[in-house]
Amino acid sequence: MAEGETTGLANNTHPAPDFRVIGVPGISMIENGDDLVAVITEALTQNQLTLEHGDVLCVAQKIISKAEGCLVALSDITPTAEAEELAAATLKDPRMVQLILEESSEVMRHKPHVLVVRHNLGFVGAHAGIDQSNVDHSDGEMALLLPKDPDGSAAALRHSLEEQYATQIGVVITDSHNRAWRMGTIGSAIGCAGIKVLDDSRGGEDIYGRTLQATLISRADALAGTATLMMGETTEKLPVVILRGLPPAQTLSDDPAQTAQLINRPLAEDMFR
Amino acid sequence: MAEGETTGLANNTHPAPDFRVIGVPGISMIENGDDLVAVITEALTQNQLTLEHGDVLCVAQKIISKAEGCLVALSDITPTAEAEELAAATLKDPRMVQLILEESSEVMRHKPHVLVVRHNLGFVGAHAGIDQSNVDHSDGEMALLLPKDPDGSAAALRHSLEEQYATQIGVVITDSHNRAWRMGTIGSAIGCAGIKVLDDSRGGEDIYGRTLQATLISRADALAGTATLMMGETTEKLPVVILRGLPPAQTLSDDPAQTAQLINRPLAEDMFR
Repeated sequence: MAEGETTGLANNTHPAPDFRVIGVPGISMIENGDDLVAVITEALTQNQLTLEHGDVLCVAQKIISKAEGCLVALSDITPTAEAEELAAATLKDPRMVQLILEESSEVMRHKPHVLVVRHNLGFVGAHAGIDQSNVDHSDGEMALLLPKDPDGSAAALRHSLEEQYATQIGVVITDSHNRAWRMGTIGSAIGCAGIKVLDDSRGGEDIYGRTLQATLISRADALAGTATLMMGETTEKLPVVILRGLPPAQTLSDDPAQTAQLINRPLAEDMFR
Repeated sequence: MAEGETTGLANNTHPAPDFRVIGVPGISMIENGDDLVAVITEALTQNQLTLEHGDVLCVAQKIISKAEGCLVALSDITPTAEAEELAAATLKDPRMVQLILEESSEVMRHKPHVLVVRHNLGFVGAHAGIDQSNVDHSDGEMALLLPKDPDGSAAALRHSLEEQYATQIGVVITDSHNRAWRMGTIGSAIGCAGIKVLDDSRGGEDIYGRTLQATLISRADALAGTATLMMGETTEKLPVVILRGLPPAQTLSDDPAQTAQLINRPLAEDMFR
């Protein structure tokens, strides 16, 4: 756009920029050991879709966790005294509290029905992201934990799909997060590969020559939030969404340091512990 | 989709669902008193765009604030003793701190270079959303405050544009927010009209018949986050973005209670004051 402006072209010779958010139907129940690359490839083919240069493939955490066997039977869990005590204070199932504690590094706050922790992956949220809904409980009560290494899962998916489609893409694993001061869940990135996770323009100048101070942008979370608008409520029916048409230079990155770990504010900077 | 499935149609007879995110170029510098409806209408026409049923028009806070005259000269501000003290503790300009205090109901946390407050509009964030970048300072140092009533601004824009285009749309006024535990800013909704701000499926059932417990979804923030992916860093060049193709039944609402005020978690539930 800046180039167009300096050549003095009229605005209407440039089409309005746009990108598309495409849901991928046809991904059925995922089970432990399922090959997600094969499942996604088949669903894309069924829908006459392919992957193109610059696409960002967003995948709901739930199907990653299921494929990786993160389903736990509550009957296998024996709560510690600490979990029993916290369960009494939060009016929760002690076995769930035990799982939450195992998945977390720190209890941040608790009250009846609410338990906010710092997940082992580094982010702060309710109930360590453990999900009891949409999990088959024919074998008794089950809980679905987050993937052990969502950045690794994203990198593996990206590698296989880039090979399969001979193109460069990004992969974001999305989860729904509650927030301290805002009502309603929002999609967040918990695993990333091949994208610019944080877009750092600090120190650049604005159009008046003033130094930009607060322009570290969480591109990963914006991508995840966009995808979850399409995924819908339960993320069960459209767990895979493609964002197509974003400028690749702003979106993609080959830097292996661009993982979801970058999103976690360092502990020393946390003003709300 | 559920209907398609029950009739037993093969997946590939249904096209993959998608929606588009369209930037509206050609919106130049906005000044106090500018008629945003006229500006937006002209930009749409220039780009051979119109507004369609179900569109969500997302507008960056910055151009609303400028049109509504929310620009303040720092030379007009006299800091109180409280502002001077807080400015010393945060290493900030006492006049900026004075403005932040006037715009806020509560100081949540502070440390050098950081001042987290509860804005008079109800949300928690850094520096009361006051912006010093991309603001013309030929008249000396200026600060741009948030609109006084962004929900009202959104409602007025919606009303005029619905009349102009004889169709039903939603309007979201977006701002970039910092977050306590996640690095990088993300687009949030600070003014809403005509959309389902919160999507409440609590008490519904998942596909196994289990009651859904945590499915209050912040649709407004997801819409805002999506739009800011297109708006880019400074929100100066593409301050208006259209989301087109989202299912109107899930997206639009005529309930006047669906405002951005719904997003603020009630004070009594705040565990991080």
